[in-house]
Amino acid sequence: MTFPEDALTDDKFLTGRLRLLQPAQGYRAATDPVLLAAACPATAGQSVLDLGCGAGAAALCLAARVPGLSLAGLELQPEYAALARRNAARNGIAMQIETGDITAIPAELRRGFDHVIANPPYYPAAGSPSPVKLRDTALRVETPLAAWVAAAATRLNPGGWLTMIFSTPNLPEALGALAPKLGSPLVLPLAPRLGREAPRLILRARKTGRAAFRLLPPFVLHEGAAHDGDRENYTPEANAVLRDGASLSAAFR
Amino acid sequence: MTFPEDALTDDKFLTGRLRLLQPAQGYRAATDPVLLAAACPATAGQSVLDLGCGAGAAALCLAARVPGLSLAGLELQPEYAALARRNAARNGIAMQIETGDITAIPAELRRGFDHVIANPPYYPAAGSPSPVKLRDTALRVETPLAAWVAAAATRLNPGGWLTMIFSTPNLPEALGALAPKLGSPLVLPLAPRLGREAPRLILRARKTGRAAFRLLPPFVLHEGAAHDGDRENYTPEANAVLRDGASLSAAFR
Repeated sequence: MTFPEDALTDDKFLTGRLRLLQPAQGYRAATDPVLLAAACPATAGQSVLDLGCGAGAAALCLAARVPGLSLAGLELQPEYAALARRNAARNGIAMQIETGDITAIPAELRRGFDHVIANPPYYPAAGSPSPVKLRDTALRVETPLAAWVAAAATRLNPGGWLTMIFSTPNLPEALGALAPKLGSPLVLPLAPRLGREAPRLILRARKTGRAAFRLLPPFVLHEGAAHDGDRENYTPEANAVLRDGASLSAAFR
Repeated sequence: MTFPEDALTDDKFLTGRLRLLQPAQGYRAATDPVLLAAACPATAGQSVLDLGCGAGAAALCLAARVPGLSLAGLELQPEYAALARRNAARNGIAMQIETGDITAIPAELRRGFDHVIANPPYYPAAGSPSPVKLRDTALRVETPLAAWVAAAATRLNPGGWLTMIFSTPNLPEALGALAPKLGSPLVLPLAPRLGREAPRLILRARKTGRAAFRLLPPFVLHEGAAHDGDRENYTPEANAVLRDGASLSAAFR
């Protein structure tokens, strides 16, 4: 199962350092996987598992910043897994990609990783307003967020970090799913503008971590008080991440 | 049991609209009860229970803003309960104050309230650094935060709001204690300055609430990037709350 070639677009990420084939329709990576990659504290030579890797955007952005990673990805939909394999190859990045469900991780990935990253499909939290029309499986309610946390907890090495990006309404569920394996949770709210509510956030948690919960100051994506016509007007900090592939490590200090 | 008169100070709150006797040593109300009162969405004529009311600062600040409340307080330490009674009387505010434990609420308070407010004693969350020397019972580890949430949930009328102020490291425990009675949680981080981590926060949750979790933009207390000598340099928004007794309702919108 693959996407027809004429159903694909070839998109630049990180000002063209990375080019990714994506389906023109359906789930398309935007800023979330880039922010996720920037938030993962992996260092050269470590191993990283991308749960629900889609077309590979987060893992490949991470590889563009950190050299010598051992990269792996798990993706439920065979069309996206095939695309992730192509995207890794055409960017010259080695990455093991398996097709399968995060609740039944295939044998080929049943080992310990230094990092797990995940940008789970959107699903409505209890009490959320009904989602607008969802586009395909990658956005549909499939697996509770707690199952993503549990899968990550199982696959992490002691001291390893889970880094996830998801909708703010799901934070209570995610925090509730950390114990007993994961601790030291850090939350980085992603605010569209200064003083605005953050609809998305990045959660980091550490296997066997015992440090106190921390709520970090919001990371502000856009300058100004409102959308300014055609200009993207990212903040300098957001530009450094989204265009230059910088790390978000300063935000997690 | 009462404090000796010469062990008390007479302190102005809300630019003198309220005067509170407090022990010179031990737990002394500062900005936390004022912020707590400002965050409680009580309206004229509603009933409010202050769990762990101390010398009464939060409830009395609330009464200074909202007319015609039916106020009650529960306090473990008889010396503080006696002080709260005196403080209510000398400010001309009617308030029922009972001595007792939040885990065994006395019969005199076993009724439904439209609002519960609480500024629980500080206690270290799992993984917190050891607290500095604690001053007295009001700051010591006594009752887990989850027990405060449970006590509030039991005493609230359907649709009633819990409003609490506490240390950020305790947020996961508090969120985990909400279900099944409380929902619609809202978190307002209290940042000492713009872009700084919030060590304290206000949590609101509603009995029988089913709305999604929301993480609000931080409420910033001080202007500038660092402490500016002797000046308090509160932000205009913080001044409105701390000096003028304004509501924090705009921050919860």
